[in-house]
Amino acid sequence: MLAISEYRDAFLNYLESKVKVKEPRNLYEPMAYILNLGGKRLRPILVLIGTEVFNADYKRALDAALAIEIFHNFSLVHDDIMDDAPLRRGKKTVHEKWGLNTGILSGDAMLINAYQLFENYEGSTFKELAQLFSKTATEVCEGQQYDIDFESRDDVSIPDYLKMIEYKTAVLVGASLQMGAIVAGASKESKDAIYQFGRLLGIAFQLQDDYLDAFGDPKTFGKQVGGDIIENKKTFLYLKSLEASTKEEAQQLEYLFSVTPSDNTEKIETVKSIFVQSGAANATQKEIENYTNSAFDVLEEIAIKDEYKKNLQEFGNMLMKRSV
Amino acid sequence: MLAISEYRDAFLNYLESKVKVKEPRNLYEPMAYILNLGGKRLRPILVLIGTEVFNADYKRALDAALAIEIFHNFSLVHDDIMDDAPLRRGKKTVHEKWGLNTGILSGDAMLINAYQLFENYEGSTFKELAQLFSKTATEVCEGQQYDIDFESRDDVSIPDYLKMIEYKTAVLVGASLQMGAIVAGASKESKDAIYQFGRLLGIAFQLQDDYLDAFGDPKTFGKQVGGDIIENKKTFLYLKSLEASTKEEAQQLEYLFSVTPSDNTEKIETVKSIFVQSGAANATQKEIENYTNSAFDVLEEIAIKDEYKKNLQEFGNMLMKRSV
Repeated sequence: MLAISEYRDAFLNYLESKVKVKEPRNLYEPMAYILNLGGKRLRPILVLIGTEVFNADYKRALDAALAIEIFHNFSLVHDDIMDDAPLRRGKKTVHEKWGLNTGILSGDAMLINAYQLFENYEGSTFKELAQLFSKTATEVCEGQQYDIDFESRDDVSIPDYLKMIEYKTAVLVGASLQMGAIVAGASKESKDAIYQFGRLLGIAFQLQDDYLDAFGDPKTFGKQVGGDIIENKKTFLYLKSLEASTKEEAQQLEYLFSVTPSDNTEKIETVKSIFVQSGAANATQKEIENYTNSAFDVLEEIAIKDEYKKNLQEFGNMLMKRSV
Repeated sequence: MLAISEYRDAFLNYLESKVKVKEPRNLYEPMAYILNLGGKRLRPILVLIGTEVFNADYKRALDAALAIEIFHNFSLVHDDIMDDAPLRRGKKTVHEKWGLNTGILSGDAMLINAYQLFENYEGSTFKELAQLFSKTATEVCEGQQYDIDFESRDDVSIPDYLKMIEYKTAVLVGASLQMGAIVAGASKESKDAIYQFGRLLGIAFQLQDDYLDAFGDPKTFGKQVGGDIIENKKTFLYLKSLEASTKEEAQQLEYLFSVTPSDNTEKIETVKSIFVQSGAANATQKEIENYTNSAFDVLEEIAIKDEYKKNLQEFGNMLMKRSV
């Protein structure tokens, strides 16, 4: 196996060779633009690793990896419209730069293009990849819809929330690894297990994202610390706090999540102290640990070389330490 | 072969049995809503007929027919957003009823769902259907982008325009018939020919749509006569008029297509008389005839029963007389 950075380089070379701007330019330029904005390329790297741990050459998985990255970027383009986001990785979002219509349409073309990348695989592999892709993409849409719905609901349960982040984020991590296994021709058991490993790690990662959004180090977190609190987002921390609080404390928290003061400093501090005092901060850390451990338990049982298990465990640890 | 109305009924029964609203409802309700707004169901009927003319049972093609209809409706949902259209078949458009975000997201889910319907076919048929679908869907996006681009361009040529309507409309007609042929296991030659028949007929149909938009009978046309003129749309009639006019006449026409008076009656009459006097109206009718004849010439050469050729010709004639 190569080092993570080597997989990334191989993927980026492939991306550059494949993503060309053609006519009509207004459809394909936004696609090249968003794909070249950067990012860690975690999902395509997972596809490549997923192939290698089942003893096949990662090069065979480059098209599947590109499909996953194009799908991920399609979802960013459409999500940025839905979130009315002006910036993505410090640059203008597609709809901000080219307008709403081009944002919608070039996103659509990207989704279709992702499917086309599977065409380089023969019939049954093509079908298996496209089928997993459709299932996953549908779940990502459902997760996004739940996320939108939750904004205006006040009866979101913790299981509801976990399902939402599973669909919106974690299934694509699982599917990335499983696509690698499909390309490698792994057994059904192995394909299922590597998917579960990715899915559980994906949930842990997203819960950690929630945690760091409140308690992360502003120097290393990348996003604005307290952003979810400012936006009144009902994250795991919030829902757990409500669950663990007295009626009065819960009402205070609900009140704080119904207002949007121009200066958020005090609100952020109060909410964070409720998160700590209610035990929600600790419970969230515990939950992250549980999901991470479950992921590693699943990994332990997969029939791959010990050396590869170690590599995947390392990748998981790096991911959770956000040093990938 | 059945009668058109029988294929339509069979398709509508299948549609009803397959399109169910599930959770999250805000994602799937818009999908059921748009699919049940009505319409002639021409594309899915063509899929079914495409199967029967190659001697296979249309029932085998119901999933492919539904995929095509769902794709068509996906494109309506996203196009209605791009056109800012409040109404579709006399009812509120999806984004008007549920908002922009749901319009985008349920459209995305429909596009993915269309691919999923091919999963009921085995590996190589699945691949062939999905591949044709991706190619066609990409062209539809490109056609839509050209259409948007043409609005702000003053150098659109007639070949540019023909390519735009081919991509935006005609390829899906060809692909519908070809999907039927794929399901029936027709030869490569037959699959190519039936596609060409549909494509040429689709171009003829769209050119006729342009023609009827100006010269159609308000009682039977369905849309507002003169709509393209009001919206300054550079249709075949307009481009042909520019081509056939003197410099002064061309400038008058260009001027008329740069203004939007509150009362359009005079503008419409003037533009229509330019369309007639320049010879563009006749030239358009001639072009429609050429494409229709080319379509029937291609049909003549396809290796199917004479009875089926007659049926397809009849369908083509009904389509061009808009009595389907």
